[in-house]
Order: sequence, then structure tokens, then C-alpha cells
Amino acid sequence: MKKLKITELNRLTPEEFKVHKKTSLIVVLDNVRSMHNVGSVFRTSDAFLVESVYLCGITNIPPHAEIHKTALGAENTVDWKYFEDAHEAVKQLKETGYTVFAIEQAEGSTLLPDLKLHASEKYAVILGNEVKGVQQSVIDICDGCIEIPQFGTKHSLNVSVTSGIIIWEFFKKLNP
Amino acid sequence: MKKLKITELNRLTPEEFKVHKKTSLIVVLDNVRSMHNVGSVFRTSDAFLVESVYLCGITNIPPHAEIHKTALGAENTVDWKYFEDAHEAVKQLKETGYTVFAIEQAEGSTLLPDLKLHASEKYAVILGNEVKGVQQSVIDICDGCIEIPQFGTKHSLNVSVTSGIIIWEFFKKLNP
Repeated sequence: MKKLKITELNRLTPEEFKVHKKTSLIVVLDNVRSMHNVGSVFRTSDAFLVESVYLCGITNIPPHAEIHKTALGAENTVDWKYFEDAHEAVKQLKETGYTVFAIEQAEGSTLLPDLKLHASEKYAVILGNEVKGVQQSVIDICDGCIEIPQFGTKHSLNVSVTSGIIIWEFFKKLNP
Repeated sequence: MKKLKITELNRLTPEEFKVHKKTSLIVVLDNVRSMHNVGSVFRTSDAFLVESVYLCGITNIPPHAEIHKTALGAENTVDWKYFEDAHEAVKQLKETGYTVFAIEQAEGSTLLPDLKLHASEKYAVILGNEVKGVQQSVIDICDGCIEIPQFGTKHSLNVSVTSGIIIWEFFKKLNP
């Protein structure tokens, strides 16, 4: 099978991307330390037409060389917003009709394969700090927690990988 | 919802991991330059009980501080092997009954959501270099290509994210 050339991939131009119909999903990063993770979330969000990325707390914002290294320009196509406090972001999202999930391993969390979404609704997911995860007080104001089931020795996945799996699943479920 | 403590996650010990039944999947990295990507593949492979990671060509091998940074010890739990030449790895895999897929955007590739797997069979997936992808001559000896459909402006996803989505989908399809 012949590999496709970049010109054969028929990707959107940045201008086309801006006006293209988006996936009804906002990705919220709360206190994400690594700019590689931030950049990677932008790149994945570009691929699956995420509506916006909200950067909160200590999470760095574009433009930044370290974010660009993994975003490769997706920080310029995907819409983003900064909030000093993730609680404020969640409040605004809920007031404007979004169902907000924290991505966490919590009591009573919904396992990702069991998650039911409705194509007509709007969603936001919150990913937290690399070490501490999503703050308990932020979880407390969310509509629920989503957990990626894991079966090995390590307690969690990398933030880039977690967001990749989550965005991919939301994209599939919202664009059936 | 209360976040679970690390001690409440009931993860496997490294000793338990070694003898645990694995997902019939081997992940082959061919000429992956970034050790962050290598480490991340180990960490994801640990979470979803991947049988082995094959490191080929210029891909660095453990032990290495840069791999450890994202693998966080998963490089010691997940089985791995080094091959100077990915072609040799593919030949060995095919001789021992594995169906081998390159993860690439190629003519006639299978879109990931359309992929059908059989829980009784053994699979391997090849991820290539961050810039060049999987070598055409390696693709030529594979059983097929799997493509993650993408809809934005960038031509591909990050290697960590790609492997995350692929391993997750294989895990779900092989452990229904």
C-alpha cells in the first residue's frame, strides 16, 4: 500500500478550519505543567475539530516555543481561552449549557466504554495536573467523572495520551 | 465524587504484571526519535497489558533517563526487544503467526473505526518516525495499514497520542 503524500491528505486550511463545524467538546486543562502536554492537546484537538481549549491556572498559554514544539501550529487554529481559576471556567461552561466531566479515577466514575453521549448536547472535559490530577473542589462542581480503565502497574496515563483517548472517543460518539 | 487514592486503585505489582495474561498485541517502534514518545508508549502499554514493545533502528532503548521520564518505570514491567532492522522484526512476527499492521495514512488503509479484530488472533502494529512515518518498504511487507481518520489542518497526530488511541482500540476489541 502506497503511503499518501501530505498533499494527498486533503487537510483543511487554517481559514477553512476556523469556519468548519466543530465537535461539541471543550477541553479544559487545569494546572497542566508540561508544555509538551499542552501542545499535544492542541494538535489532537485540531485533528478532531474540538471547539475550544481552556487553559487554567499554571497552564502556560500560546504563543510559546515549548507549546509549539508539539502543537506544530495547532495552537493557532484551535480556539483557546485562559482562566486563572478552573472553578470559574466550569461555572461559565455549566451556565452556557455544557455538561462538564472531570477525567479522574473517582468513586462512582463512569468507565469510558460505558459513557453515553448525545450528539445534540454540548460537553466539556477537564484534565488536571500531571501529578495531582483534577482538584477535588473542581470535581465537586462537575456533572461527573470519566475514568479510562487501566490494568497495569502504573496509576495513570500521560496527560497527552489521556486527552488523546478521550477526545477520540468523544469525537466518535458525537459524530456517529 | 471522591478521587481515589493511589492505594485504592488496586494496580498490579511488577511481579503480578509479569505473569498476568496479556493483550495479544505487540507494538513496534521503527526509528522513533523522541525518547518521550518511547517512554509514553511503555506507560500506555503497561496500562493496557501489551505483550511486548519492539524497538527498531534509531529508537533508543531502556535504561535511559529520558525514556524513564515518561515511562515512569513501565520500561521495567513491559517486555521489550531491540531489532536493528524493522524488516527483520516484521518477518519474525509474521513467521510466528502475528498479523502485522502499519499505522499509516496510505492508499487502501483501513480506518480505525472499521477495523475488525479476532480475540483469538495475535497482532502487531508498527509506528514510524515522527517526521517520515513508517518506511514504505516496511509497509510493503505488512498485512495492511490502519489509519486514524483526522479532520483538522495538521497532517498527523503525535506518536504518543497515536499509539495511545491504537493501543486503547486494540485493547477494547481484543477484550470485548
